[in-house]
Parts: sequence; structure tokens; C-alpha cells
Amino acid sequence: MGKVRVAGFSVSIDGFGAGPDQSLEHPLGKRGGELHNWFYPTRVFQSMIGKEGGTEDRFAAAAMEGFGAFILGRNMFGPIRGEWPDDVWKGWWGDNPPYHAPTFILTHHARASIVMEGGTTFHFVTDGIEAALAQAKAAAGDLDVKIGGGVSTVRQYLLAGAIDELQLSLSPVVLGRGESLFAGIDLPSLGYRLTEAVPMELATHVVLTR
Amino acid sequence: MGKVRVAGFSVSIDGFGAGPDQSLEHPLGKRGGELHNWFYPTRVFQSMIGKEGGTEDRFAAAAMEGFGAFILGRNMFGPIRGEWPDDVWKGWWGDNPPYHAPTFILTHHARASIVMEGGTTFHFVTDGIEAALAQAKAAAGDLDVKIGGGVSTVRQYLLAGAIDELQLSLSPVVLGRGESLFAGIDLPSLGYRLTEAVPMELATHVVLTR
Repeated sequence: MGKVRVAGFSVSIDGFGAGPDQSLEHPLGKRGGELHNWFYPTRVFQSMIGKEGGTEDRFAAAAMEGFGAFILGRNMFGPIRGEWPDDVWKGWWGDNPPYHAPTFILTHHARASIVMEGGTTFHFVTDGIEAALAQAKAAAGDLDVKIGGGVSTVRQYLLAGAIDELQLSLSPVVLGRGESLFAGIDLPSLGYRLTEAVPMELATHVVLTR
Repeated sequence: MGKVRVAGFSVSIDGFGAGPDQSLEHPLGKRGGELHNWFYPTRVFQSMIGKEGGTEDRFAAAAMEGFGAFILGRNMFGPIRGEWPDDVWKGWWGDNPPYHAPTFILTHHARASIVMEGGTTFHFVTDGIEAALAQAKAAAGDLDVKIGGGVSTVRQYLLAGAIDELQLSLSPVVLGRGESLFAGIDLPSLGYRLTEAVPMELATHVVLTR
């Protein structure tokens, strides 16, 4: 049985996992993209956008590799409602998304599954986070399930006690406003302990386990 | 004219500058002392407790050295009311406190100034943060004024737009509860920009200026 993990999840100094005013133009919120400055130069990200090269970074690798299934909130899949024509939009990533595994989208709108290139199939789950997790675990088998975000999805699974390991990348960015990962969430009371902290040039990576 | 600075101010991953349930036994709140794990091994801290040796750390030095005056909240000076006999308590630090300069304590209880050894004089200011800052600036002359904490005092001066430079030490600690430095404070809107980020083994140090 695999673990349920959050990995490569970037957070600002002031605790935001996304910027404010998310839109089609700013899917991560204003200045939200700066949270991921540590990730862009890595081989893992370069490969996600179809390029060769990039730096080796074990936290970037751990963020995308070795998962048997992914769970994403609906905003991770597409822009705000009304700008997402259901039968046309197939995610932000083109024909070959970087998941390469069954990927479960939390949504209130039922839709047929979409088989993409490279092993990714998008499944749309309308009956809640626990149903999505059960389906993802079944699909992942012995591999891990990644809770891919966004902030609201990670917070829901944290509060449900469903996440075994939380790997955060603390970016040297101050956003001021946005989606707070931590507000009202008491990680030690939920059973999490810091088990690793690795300061690197572009981010400090920490791992919490329970 | 010197600057008004916060320096060596330790913050947890989840944004707390002190732990919960502050008491005589836990003046920094429960587990709050862990925020300063980066500071204890330094020469600057070792010297504060009368010991020789310790590591050289420019952020530790910048946290205590070069100031012409300090401002402290009342909880930084003494434990909770009722456990602070006004005419006896002379701070946490013994006869020779680590400030070596005029040090202004924000309080609602008037008290005569106390001349300590080593250049520290404690002055008790009862007419608010702006009066305290004016007195501290006058005392500091061309040197900087340090807003020494705690969290509530730093937040008040941030919101008043009085702080020129904010140097934070991000400790790999998750507290869950405590005094949040950032909650409801939008640093970019207050004019702060990140100007330096230095990952070190025990903390990542960042500098914000306006």
C-alpha cells in the first residue's frame, strides 16, 4: 500500500501557496508563479515542458515521479468556471500531461474520463474528497498517491487526516495576499512532525510526516 | 539618522514568532524556544550568556550589534502581570543585559528608569509606540533603533509604517499555534520588498526593506 503525499508544494515566507486574484492570465494568482522559481530550472520541470537538460534536484524529482495516481482540485485542471468549456478543455498541459498516471479531478460537474497521451487519464470525481482518494488509492496500487493541489485541496485532505507526508518548498518570496496554506491548520496537533529540512539556494525544502 | 530595524527575528514555517501559552516557565510560549535554535550556537548568543566561543554568524551579529537604542514590548521585559513585582523585577537578563544601550519598554505601568551594568538603561514608556520610537530615535542618534519584539510589538510598528528593514530568520520548525507575525499583514502593500535571502544550515535568513 502506497502513501498519500503532498510533494514539491511551494509556500511563501508569509505562508501562501498561491497568489491573490487567480484568473486565466494568472492561474497561480498574481505573483504566484514566483513561488516555483526553484522548480523551473530543474530537469523535472524542463522535461514537463518538453525540453532537455536542467538541474538535478531530488525534491523536484520527488514532486512528480513515483506516483501511481494524482488528485487535483478543479482549478488545477482548468481556469475559472465559464472559461472552461467542458467538452473541449483538456487541462493546462496539452496532449501529453506530466502525470503519466490516472489523475482524479475534484469537481461538481460530471464529465466523461479523458484518455490523454503518455499514460495520463483524467477522471472527474463529483462525490467528494474521500471518494476521490479511494479511487486514487485503488488506481495507484502499491505506488503513492499525490495530492497535487491547489491550496484548498491540500487543506481539505490535511484536515481530513488523509495525508501521510507533506513535502513543502519554502520559497524566498513574500506575497502579502493569496491562499494561505497554514491559516487555522495546526500541523503538530494533526500529528505532523518535521523530519527533514534541507536549505538549498532557491528554496528550503522541509518534510513533515505523521 | 539611523534606521529602524527588526533583526534576527525568528519565525516558524507556519508563520509564528512565538509559541502558544506563554508563561513564566515558557516565556517564548510552548516550543517557542525552538525558533531560536539557529541563534544559540553563535558567538553573539554565547556572549549574551557570558560564555566564550560560538560560531560567527553575520545575521546573529546584525541582530544585536550596532544599535543605539532598543524598543521591547512588556512581555519581552518580564513575565505576565502579577508575576512582575514592579520594583524588584529588572528583566530576564541579570545585572548586565545584552543591550548595552538605552532600552525602551512599552507598558501601561509607569516606573522609574533602571540603570543596569554595561550601558543598558531601561526606560518605561506609557504613552504609546510613537512616543517610544521618538525617544529611542533621539537616544540612538546616528545609530539604528532595534524593534526587539515580541510579535505584537513588531506587528504594531509594521502596521504603523515605522520599520525600515525587517530581517527574519526562518526556522525549520512547525508550531501549529502561537503568535502569528504575518496574519492580516500584507508586507508588499506596506512597501516591503525582499532584498536578500540566505539559506544557512539552521535557518534561512531573509531581509525585507522599504
